[in-house]
Amino acid sequence: MGLKRNKISVIGSGFTGATTALMVAQKELGDVVLVDIPNMENATIGKALDMAEAAPVWGFDAKITGTSNYEDTKDSDLVIITAGIARKPGMSRDDLVNTNAKIMKTVTQNIVKYSPDTTIVVLTNPVDAMTYTVYKESGFPKERVIGQSGVLDTARFCAFVAEELNLSVKDIHGFVLGGHGDDMVPLIRYSNAGGIPLDKLISKERLDEIVARTRTGGGEIVNLLGNGSAYYAPAASLTVMAEAILKDQRRVIPAIAYLEGEYGYNDIYLGVPTILGGNGIEEIVQLDLTEEEKAALDKSAESVKNVLHVLS
Amino acid sequence: MGLKRNKISVIGSGFTGATTALMVAQKELGDVVLVDIPNMENATIGKALDMAEAAPVWGFDAKITGTSNYEDTKDSDLVIITAGIARKPGMSRDDLVNTNAKIMKTVTQNIVKYSPDTTIVVLTNPVDAMTYTVYKESGFPKERVIGQSGVLDTARFCAFVAEELNLSVKDIHGFVLGGHGDDMVPLIRYSNAGGIPLDKLISKERLDEIVARTRTGGGEIVNLLGNGSAYYAPAASLTVMAEAILKDQRRVIPAIAYLEGEYGYNDIYLGVPTILGGNGIEEIVQLDLTEEEKAALDKSAESVKNVLHVLS
Amino acid sequence: MGLKRNKISVIGSGFTGATTALMVAQKELGDVVLVDIPNMENATIGKALDMAEAAPVWGFDAKITGTSNYEDTKDSDLVIITAGIARKPGMSRDDLVNTNAKIMKTVTQNIVKYSPDTTIVVLTNPVDAMTYTVYKESGFPKERVIGQSGVLDTARFCAFVAEELNLSVKDIHGFVLGGHGDDMVPLIRYSNAGGIPLDKLISKERLDEIVARTRTGGGEIVNLLGNGSAYYAPAASLTVMAEAILKDQRRVIPAIAYLEGEYGYNDIYLGVPTILGGNGIEEIVQLDLTEEEKAALDKSAESVKNVLHVLS
Amino acid sequence: MGLKRNKISVIGSGFTGATTALMVAQKELGDVVLVDIPNMENATIGKALDMAEAAPVWGFDAKITGTSNYEDTKDSDLVIITAGIARKPGMSRDDLVNTNAKIMKTVTQNIVKYSPDTTIVVLTNPVDAMTYTVYKESGFPKERVIGQSGVLDTARFCAFVAEELNLSVKDIHGFVLGGHGDDMVPLIRYSNAGGIPLDKLISKERLDEIVARTRTGGGEIVNLLGNGSAYYAPAASLTVMAEAILKDQRRVIPAIAYLEGEYGYNDIYLGVPTILGGNGIEEIVQLDLTEEEKAALDKSAESVKNVLHVLS
Repeated sequence: MGLKRNKISVIGSGFTGATTALMVAQKELGDVVLVDIPNMENATIGKALDMAEAAPVWGFDAKITGTSNYEDTKDSDLVIITAGIARKPGMSRDDLVNTNAKIMKTVTQNIVKYSPDTTIVVLTNPVDAMTYTVYKESGFPKERVIGQSGVLDTARFCAFVAEELNLSVKDIHGFVLGGHGDDMVPLIRYSNAGGIPLDKLISKERLDEIVARTRTGGGEIVNLLGNGSAYYAPAASLTVMAEAILKDQRRVIPAIAYLEGEYGYNDIYLGVPTILGGNGIEEIVQLDLTEEEKAALDKSAESVKNVLHVLS
Repeated sequence: MGLKRNKISVIGSGFTGATTALMVAQKELGDVVLVDIPNMENATIGKALDMAEAAPVWGFDAKITGTSNYEDTKDSDLVIITAGIARKPGMSRDDLVNTNAKIMKTVTQNIVKYSPDTTIVVLTNPVDAMTYTVYKESGFPKERVIGQSGVLDTARFCAFVAEELNLSVKDIHGFVLGGHGDDMVPLIRYSNAGGIPLDKLISKERLDEIVARTRTGGGEIVNLLGNGSAYYAPAASLTVMAEAILKDQRRVIPAIAYLEGEYGYNDIYLGVPTILGGNGIEEIVQLDLTEEEKAALDKSAESVKNVLHVLS
Repeated sequence: MGLKRNKISVIGSGFTGATTALMVAQKELGDVVLVDIPNMENATIGKALDMAEAAPVWGFDAKITGTSNYEDTKDSDLVIITAGIARKPGMSRDDLVNTNAKIMKTVTQNIVKYSPDTTIVVLTNPVDAMTYTVYKESGFPKERVIGQSGVLDTARFCAFVAEELNLSVKDIHGFVLGGHGDDMVPLIRYSNAGGIPLDKLISKERLDEIVARTRTGGGEIVNLLGNGSAYYAPAASLTVMAEAILKDQRRVIPAIAYLEGEYGYNDIYLGVPTILGGNGIEEIVQLDLTEEEKAALDKSAESVKNVLHVLS
Repeated sequence: MGLKRNKISVIGSGFTGATTALMVAQKELGDVVLVDIPNMENATIGKALDMAEAAPVWGFDAKITGTSNYEDTKDSDLVIITAGIARKPGMSRDDLVNTNAKIMKTVTQNIVKYSPDTTIVVLTNPVDAMTYTVYKESGFPKERVIGQSGVLDTARFCAFVAEELNLSVKDIHGFVLGGHGDDMVPLIRYSNAGGIPLDKLISKERLDEIVARTRTGGGEIVNLLGNGSAYYAPAASLTVMAEAILKDQRRVIPAIAYLEGEYGYNDIYLGVPTILGGNGIEEIVQLDLTEEEKAALDKSAESVKNVLHVLS
């Protein structure tokens, strides 16, 4: 009895996980449990403590704790998975896929054990395949296992457009389908600045350049940082998905969803427009695609299937 | 002509500097320029870009750019200095002081060159001495060179008290004077939970433990992280000081201020209660101290003077 | 199943009720149902609709509906009662008390019928007696029936102090016990500016004037408006109480609570410091009072009892 | 010297003016001066005081004062005009126009006298003609005299669409041109839910009904209230325009702008898409219209001209 705060567990205390924990707390979406493996436990506790010490100054009411014990995630309302390794020089893609898939399985078993009714959002790359792995391992209904990629791809696209037009980011709206990064299928005709279609405001050449830059947006950051990858925009993207679910907002958000016939695909996780709310993915919005768009989406789906084959 | 956003430059793109840039942008306090040395320029640009890509999702209107060129800081309304090295194993304290003092001088010359009318907030350790160094090098009026330490010490104290009492951080108010960390002088009689003095709510023994933990709060995080030091709470602390100045809030905030007779000290930067507003330190609040408090503050001042001697 | 937003019903669609509905929605505390009597239904629907039309611009996700049908309040997580008449020229105090008590009874029966597990916050004047009436009528446990007065009295006191000292309202903290307005018992020794006791910053004479102004703060607004009474600060006060409960913040907030021995009183609703959280009043904080303070509180309690006698 | 808060004057302390003052303060856009005529001065002071007393609870740092003396508006960064009478039964439209035009002239003379460099946003109806009147009387450059109507019309449209689709208001984007209310020209093809054109999600019949409801949205509220007109959504609309200007956001916002050839019109104030930033209207976005849209806009312009003729 009594009203209780939501509880959000973030698996993986690396930069993205930690930044997500911070942002979720800043928005007072609930109490946050940051989880990592035992030999990272102290660092995880340290990061959580540092954030907890920011709370009185920033003014957010949210408990943040670090742990390596999944028991502490018991009865989470939402679990966000950021755990996994990044591809290292000399590592084959298949090695990456298999290593992260193994991590997803362990993580998922632990989540399910303590929070059988939760909803899971996955960020770990390759995200389409990892979300699929979590789905299969969890035995959860499909609407409660969701992958992130479209929010981030869209955010990058919007940031570039806002800079190009010198306009507020609040008014730039992008739209993507398909896989993450290279496999992204931008729907320019649905992208706009304050409602005005972008192709009325930017030349086709510049738009193509912006789309190309968006596709390789993750790589651009990796190259600049020299050592590591993006985490601010990924964490913000996870936070907006968490907010949509925890506050039952029914937002129109591109997400990696399990398809059963939608857009002509089956038994695959792919980026599509969804309605995200208290039940997770409440709806998949089906759009009529042009032939060109459908071909690009097919290519994207093919790419996801190829990764899945590695896993079987 | 026309209304313009404030411009904030953050010197040092390490974790604290970068997190400060993010938080300043999240609060839409103005556009942010993140600055680091030339061989960190790409990483600095990368972090700034990652944050800029978070803007459309989080919904903040603030340009964030990375650079190693101080010309880009021109006409900053506020400059926050987080640059400097951390003490490494085998390094003497004097080496640390001299190295960071040298960095402060270079940084200050560059700030002054491009923003002669700005206000500077310093975080670099040892912060009392570094703020003094920046003050002398800048030639700025004393109210426009300010050090951070009391906000962070207070935040840690409040976080511990909130946890102890299981109360909202919004209602816990601490009060410290003096130097950072070990040299901190907590004024328990001015600390309260929703107005109720803490000694009515917590036993003296537990309060002593909490004060002791606060004193070593920075070290606690360092030990937990294993590799690095706190940055979330320090960044939040800088942000609240930035907000007080940029929004001319006239907040009652403990800050490291240049003393000319206040509390009986001269030509020293020391943590005291201040009114922070559009003119920087608008007032130093002078309190009657008990003998015990005055003795502790003397010890704190002595400690700061010892560091200053290293510099001469 | 699935995550759902909280539901807050606001009874009474006058200025205070409507403004409370707006503020609760602005903070996205949940969906809001604004309720009034049948012959005010259209106006209530109109106000709710006007607010709902503000949502896309302000950017809050909260449904706001107007109704005269209590069925629409079903399963509210929180109910705020602002209904009741204001004292009119020529009306005796006893008439006011009896009329509003009758309204409280009807309203409470309807609330209990549709939301037997909810928590109720009462604003209607005379608030101590009206909260008592709602408590008795509801049959609810005492922690789930709460009156508002101390938050508002404190807010006024803080506003006056902030103006006097030209300081941010964020740093001014007041503390009151006892009844609303005239019967208020301010604890100056627990009031501070950024931790600094007010009597160090303001002369006793000015503090006395500020206390006197606070006592008659409601009347000051009534006189200025000429026609009507305060509603912005009352609504903000209700909203902060709603937030503490709905977000389970465990805040230290002065509230009108049912006393069973605390402070030496029994079977009375009186303003005392409380911990407000997900279970309503989770704790009553007992302070040692000076003789003078205890005498003032006795007088306040006496005053409440006198009103209660009217009801019996 | 020193950083100073912005100053916003709101002329007219009726429900819309007062609510605008509150919202501007809640967003900490600056200090607010609420102005009305001398015989409303006390009520204006009372409303401002009530809001100022809400500040410590809501937590906003903004001074709010009421006055009838325009000297108190000196050096405003932005002035919002909500003053004017509403059409009463038996009053001819021409009487309304002439009365409000007279009020606009007096108000404008006073604004210009004390804030010759400010920007003015007008809400008073009939808003196109009143904005024209203020422009002519002020002698200000056209970019600094702006009328509100499209933000409100769009907000209503979006609220209805969000309700129809049961989606978050955050993802619904409408687009209107032309005059206020009846004369509104909705561009459905530029309206969307999360990027998806509305005509893919709602049948033409329902969309027509929603457009029709939007046109008469003001009247719907008037009819429901029985006594008075909408103020929450109008105030929120003014606040978003104020924010765009004061924070130099360069947002894409429909506003009533002075046209010199744009869309084929001259010497007229008409609702068009604009870029709103620190210089007021920084740009008018010119779109290719369909014949049907152009015809509707012509009709809208005709309607505005007819009102202007009354004034000559």
